Amino acid sequence: MTYVPNERSQSVAHLATRARAASRALARLSNEQRNEVLMAVASAIEDNSQKIIDANACDCRAAEPAITSGTMPSAMFARLRVNEHGISEMASRVRDVARLADPLGRRLAATELDDGLVLYKESCPLGVIGIVFESRPDVVPQVAALALKSGNAVLLKGGMEAMHTNAALVEVWRDCLANFPFVPLDSIGLLHTRADVMELLALDHDVDLIVPRGSRELVQFVAQNSRIPVLGHGQGICHVYVDCTADIEKALRITLDSKVQYPAACNSAETLLVHEDIASEFLPRIFTNLRKAGVEVRGCSRTVALLAEPGIVPANEDDWGTEYSDLILSVKIVATAAEAIAHIRHYGSGHTETIVTEDHEAATQFMDEVDAAGVFHNTSTRFADGFRYGFGAELGISTNKLHARGPVGLEGLTTYKYKLFGDGHTVAEYSSGARHFKHRPMKD
Amino acid sequence: MTYVPNERSQSVAHLATRARAASRALARLSNEQRNEVLMAVASAIEDNSQKIIDANACDCRAAEPAITSGTMPSAMFARLRVNEHGISEMASRVRDVARLADPLGRRLAATELDDGLVLYKESCPLGVIGIVFESRPDVVPQVAALALKSGNAVLLKGGMEAMHTNAALVEVWRDCLANFPFVPLDSIGLLHTRADVMELLALDHDVDLIVPRGSRELVQFVAQNSRIPVLGHGQGICHVYVDCTADIEKALRITLDSKVQYPAACNSAETLLVHEDIASEFLPRIFTNLRKAGVEVRGCSRTVALLAEPGIVPANEDDWGTEYSDLILSVKIVATAAEAIAHIRHYGSGHTETIVTEDHEAATQFMDEVDAAGVFHNTSTRFADGFRYGFGAELGISTNKLHARGPVGLEGLTTYKYKLFGDGHTVAEYSSGARHFKHRPMKD
Repeated sequence: MTYVPNERSQSVAHLATRARAASRALARLSNEQRNEVLMAVASAIEDNSQKIIDANACDCRAAEPAITSGTMPSAMFARLRVNEHGISEMASRVRDVARLADPLGRRLAATELDDGLVLYKESCPLGVIGIVFESRPDVVPQVAALALKSGNAVLLKGGMEAMHTNAALVEVWRDCLANFPFVPLDSIGLLHTRADVMELLALDHDVDLIVPRGSRELVQFVAQNSRIPVLGHGQGICHVYVDCTADIEKALRITLDSKVQYPAACNSAETLLVHEDIASEFLPRIFTNLRKAGVEVRGCSRTVALLAEPGIVPANEDDWGTEYSDLILSVKIVATAAEAIAHIRHYGSGHTETIVTEDHEAATQFMDEVDAAGVFHNTSTRFADGFRYGFGAELGISTNKLHARGPVGLEGLTTYKYKLFGDGHTVAEYSSGARHFKHRPMKD
Repeated sequence: MTYVPNERSQSVAHLATRARAASRALARLSNEQRNEVLMAVASAIEDNSQKIIDANACDCRAAEPAITSGTMPSAMFARLRVNEHGISEMASRVRDVARLADPLGRRLAATELDDGLVLYKESCPLGVIGIVFESRPDVVPQVAALALKSGNAVLLKGGMEAMHTNAALVEVWRDCLANFPFVPLDSIGLLHTRADVMELLALDHDVDLIVPRGSRELVQFVAQNSRIPVLGHGQGICHVYVDCTADIEKALRITLDSKVQYPAACNSAETLLVHEDIASEFLPRIFTNLRKAGVEVRGCSRTVALLAEPGIVPANEDDWGTEYSDLILSVKIVATAAEAIAHIRHYGSGHTETIVTEDHEAATQFMDEVDAAGVFHNTSTRFADGFRYGFGAELGISTNKLHARGPVGLEGLTTYKYKLFGDGHTVAEYSSGARHFKHRPMKD
């Protein structure tokens, strides 16, 4: 059975207009209503597991020639395949999102401007979110759940390889929404082609935020072609800096964890910077550990000379700016903490940087001067993650400085509005001096 | 005496690189240091009043032909001219900024992820801000003060008409900075030509935020040509909606204040929407008041028929989408609150919208459903302002939904970073189940 997308005949602009209209209805829902729908969707995913798995089988069959010819890497194929376990994972992720605290209607500030004139700053949905992602079909329920929980409509565009799976998932989602008259079906929409994406990126009137999830190329393509604000990270070139006062045992643990715990993650370390005063003690030991873990080391000339091992590849200029996403680590010896900071400034991507030191002042300087979403002291870079930070969900990690920086949870899908309550107050009374503002901060 | 800008020979890219370097030094300053410099700059502005006034005279002389020929409106010339009073105003605005609470190093969140593993979310400077503005030279000390207070370097481009005044102000500022070895001179830089602006807008590597201040055309030009995030508002098409349950006296006061208190402001009302059930009682009275205040009324066909006054101009389609910035008000009778909300959705600019009603539910619905930076109940739209909101300073008003929405104070010039403090913690311990996150929110 093949799930033919049911909206192919409609323009993306039309979908976006309908999503905008749907977003207004979503903004009016209570947290209880949104949660009720999410719980029902989670069950619908489980109840329709065969339908989803059948659609996925269709995508997997279509991928066979690409696997045989080697144009689709086996890791990509693994991410494409959905089984019963994957279905229950999807459902439980949706339930997890339902259980999160309501991100809407939060009072971010409250001020009594004057007697009877009260100002509130309150969180509210952005409106319509566009998500452009690759491969993994489990992104569909995950981001659709985050969007619904935060009162936003969502337009999704997944990878062509997963088109049938994605379409089946969206169909299950919409069929479930149909049971809830208060939720418009257009709360979720599916796009199909690259041309659709180009059309989407121009719709700044009806789409409030674009979230690209996938390769660096995808994120760059979206950022360069969008008229809509983009939330995403380009690269994760993270550094571990081992200061002269580092505790060697901590430095060994942190370096290894930052590199090998999950090398494909954007928060894994790509470069190790080592203070020259500790290099001769630390480098041979970490090199042994890295070699055991299968890590290739690319060293600066001093590292190569110090280790004097045939296994060390000399690093070239490109190495310092490369996100390996693999078991490769570039290593550089620096003369000072300032040199480490300058190196990070030049080659870092503003993602996550960690210093290993027992010197409080060195840690403070590093954390204040390094301009990154995450600045860590004596911990692995791998902690930079929405779940580990306790957000309960992660939309992605932003290396933007505006709106949302670092791991982004539900809050990244909200904005705020100012609500001012008065009783016939006019500005003229204040301009004339007849009345004066009091500006009293209020407790919640 | 003519103040020839001293950086004309340098490329904007070079200025921006130097500003970036300066921003790192600024980020390290304490609030006391930043305030000390601001207080000194305020005095320097007063001490150099003659120098600034002389430079301004030069600009005013250069403007004479444009005034004579009528290409420079007299209001623009008035904004250009600087006298002793203007100088002390500038100085006291700088002192006001120094007195504001420190926007940096604020703890926005604190979580104990586990024993000895503590996460802080802390405000920090954006880095380098570009400000593109028109005419008024008093923008120079005002935005330079906001930038310094928030630890950011700033690149300024003012109107050509004020080039000598702006250059003198920047020179005074830099001469003063020279007395403080901890503040780099490159904390402030001046651009000179339209070509400079085009160059600036492409420097997304070294400039973090662009703030256009001026006409709608300027804001649109910047937004359409920038690779850097832009903070600004396009238009202020604000509405007053008088519901069927409105208190007539409040409605009269609020409508008049929203229109005439300062019609050139972006938060002034352009359109009055009146529920049909109250129109025959309210409209004749507000029309009398508006006429007395010199306001031209452009009415929908029902308004024209109801008032049956020769002074009422029939409104055309363009009127509903026009920011008059003048003593003109378009008036429409609507059948329902929903029609008013739909009108605002179609023609509003997302700036500020107010409802006059004694019906709590109608107010709630309006405030929840209208998607604008400010949604007001029984108050004038003119309250949408950073000073009236109690921010102590206003950089501008944003109709963006991301980063900063509504009146923007110092907070709009900051971002945040996550600081994670550990003691050798690794993610592997948590993945293996050996340790578990506690995620305990901490009190400040």
